[in-house]
Amino acid sequence: MRADTLWTNARLLTMAPGRPVSAELGTIAARQGRIVHVGPQAVEAERTIDCVGRLVTPGLIDCHTHLVYAGNRAAEFELRLKGASYEEIARAGGGIVSTMRHTREASEAELVEQSLTRLDALLAEGVTTIEIKSGYGLDVESERKMLSAARSLGERRPVRVATTFLGAHALPPEFAGRADDYVDAVAEMISALGGLADAVDAFCEGIGFSSAQVERVFAAAREAGLPVKLHAEQLSNLHGAALAASYGALSADHLEHLDEAGVAAMARAGTVATLLPGAYYFTRETKLPPIDGLRAAGVPVALATDSNPGTSPMTSLLLVMNMAATFFRMTVEECLLGVTRNAAAALGLSDEIGTIEIGKACDLAIWDVREPAELVYRIGFNPLHARVFGGETSARPA
Amino acid sequence: MRADTLWTNARLLTMAPGRPVSAELGTIAARQGRIVHVGPQAVEAERTIDCVGRLVTPGLIDCHTHLVYAGNRAAEFELRLKGASYEEIARAGGGIVSTMRHTREASEAELVEQSLTRLDALLAEGVTTIEIKSGYGLDVESERKMLSAARSLGERRPVRVATTFLGAHALPPEFAGRADDYVDAVAEMISALGGLADAVDAFCEGIGFSSAQVERVFAAAREAGLPVKLHAEQLSNLHGAALAASYGALSADHLEHLDEAGVAAMARAGTVATLLPGAYYFTRETKLPPIDGLRAAGVPVALATDSNPGTSPMTSLLLVMNMAATFFRMTVEECLLGVTRNAAAALGLSDEIGTIEIGKACDLAIWDVREPAELVYRIGFNPLHARVFGGETSARPA
Ligand SMILES: [Zn+2]
Ligand SMILES: [Zn+2]
Repeated sequence: MRADTLWTNARLLTMAPGRPVSAELGTIAARQGRIVHVGPQAVEAERTIDCVGRLVTPGLIDCHTHLVYAGNRAAEFELRLKGASYEEIARAGGGIVSTMRHTREASEAELVEQSLTRLDALLAEGVTTIEIKSGYGLDVESERKMLSAARSLGERRPVRVATTFLGAHALPPEFAGRADDYVDAVAEMISALGGLADAVDAFCEGIGFSSAQVERVFAAAREAGLPVKLHAEQLSNLHGAALAASYGALSADHLEHLDEAGVAAMARAGTVATLLPGAYYFTRETKLPPIDGLRAAGVPVALATDSNPGTSPMTSLLLVMNMAATFFRMTVEECLLGVTRNAAAALGLSDEIGTIEIGKACDLAIWDVREPAELVYRIGFNPLHARVFGGETSARPA
Repeated sequence: MRADTLWTNARLLTMAPGRPVSAELGTIAARQGRIVHVGPQAVEAERTIDCVGRLVTPGLIDCHTHLVYAGNRAAEFELRLKGASYEEIARAGGGIVSTMRHTREASEAELVEQSLTRLDALLAEGVTTIEIKSGYGLDVESERKMLSAARSLGERRPVRVATTFLGAHALPPEFAGRADDYVDAVAEMISALGGLADAVDAFCEGIGFSSAQVERVFAAAREAGLPVKLHAEQLSNLHGAALAASYGALSADHLEHLDEAGVAAMARAGTVATLLPGAYYFTRETKLPPIDGLRAAGVPVALATDSNPGTSPMTSLLLVMNMAATFFRMTVEECLLGVTRNAAAALGLSDEIGTIEIGKACDLAIWDVREPAELVYRIGFNPLHARVFGGETSARPA
């Protein structure tokens, strides 16, 4: 069988289980967008691309983002630096409600345009798969518009988009004082959204939804046949991760306040821990997620940007790795697994992406560095040479 | 007088003294690389560039970098994350001595090539002036090579390079136990370097040089007619900033351990406080520089990347601003002043650059944003539309 494309002289960082994170020279071949060969020797192919010793990793995966929204919260950021209180910021029209208003007012085309600049920043660093949540619409039409915009992004750029319905993100003003009624509405939205969402998420927190309310959202997701994930234990411990694990959640995310029981529940269920160092940094959190406990229990750890206007206006997955190393003392190997193999698991896409292995989609990032550690060590530097999505090289966006 | 170029519909952030950091629509005109007009109305020009409402700031200034060096310290970073002790890292060939070895071994052309990728990352974010220190050669020939490489960078790219001789950065192994002899050698180097250095710097610290040794370096600089600056009060308080101020230093840099007397001495001397949030972040420092004291005393505060392989492998001045806001609670206006007007003062170039004012070099950064706060708020996102150096637009590097 002749391959379409062969990459030679690639310093291979396959991220496959059982292989050390060492970068040995080898070749990769793809046919019809799939990897058909990985190894030291070459195979026949229509065309050959010489990597000249460059490091080649799986395409990066950003498995937790709120990338689609309208407006920004720079004015709120500025006010806060001037010492404004939360009340003053709310009076000045800040907070998540301001993003909801802008997002509701925007057309789907405007949402796509505003989000494309953020998406392009991620693609420029080798991202080939991105998860995008809804959750700034908070009514069925606006949530549908957000998810549809997210799907459109995957048509406008060579990237795989996994969508997540996050109706239970915040209480919209029209439901003030009636959180349970809103949860009913969210459950109805889940069945109304059809194929627009690949998963269902919620924000389990004192300022979000209670675990009882989250459980009703999860039950609706189960009925609709959708996998769940959860924003859990970010500001306090509501035992959301254990609840999520009991529903076989793909991931529980944030987790600064996760306790031992939560770790054990996640380990048993195979739920991925998705850590979000950008939000930890931007909100000046000081409580660290229980890295040692997660390690000891063998819970896979993913890393993501949490790209969002309020608590992580961030569009660099390379910087996420550096922050995970700096703040969380995660090793280079752990950081790289966090944006490849474990991020794939957090999206339920382990069979499709996340490692360089035969049968998987040929999504690659080719880097102008020699050693894996260089991808984690630098701050605000992008050594991407080329990005390959489904076997096709895309030029690095400017 | 007809101008060469006129920029219209620019949202002007001139950063000039006395003007608020508001962004009003206006025009800028340049003739022979100098700004000849700033204001609401247009003037005649050979060519007109419509900024379509984009924000226009002075070109950014990175006033403290160690950009020129060979090799990197990613392996050391990786070892440290695995829990290696400083001794183990030293045995594995890490530390500043490893950068010294690589830098001594590299040819000047190799130094230039390796440093260009870092410089390009900074230019891509609108930097038009950069300070570059020597200090990894630590013998006269290698220090000369570094400074000459720094000068070459200014010929290879449209950017202004200010060079600083930092012979008193670390003790080279051949002078082990003979720090005073090395300081004599440094003083001799200052007179031997001729016009290669625009200023003289030293590292005043327990692990660096004592204030008595620094004073001998400063005396040699004064004899050579060169202005001084100092790495001061980073890890402890050796009263370096006050010493620097007594020599009329351009800046004292780092300053986490600066005391009130140091602040007062800097205020009297007009010495700029250059803060380096990247090093604060990367070294996981918890002691904050005395921002309130500097504010109260009216000391101008500059911000820089400190780009270096050991404690700040960073090449993003936009991220520096975000970190200064996040860690130091500096306001948007303070952050922007830190990389424009105050950074110019830290280089003794206040008459030449740092604001958009008639008579200054026409160095501009044109941004795809509407509000100044957007330049500080985002993390890992580059909204640069175009960079103008000496009146000429350079394409944004890929
Ligand atoms: Zn989130
Ligand atoms: Zn320095």
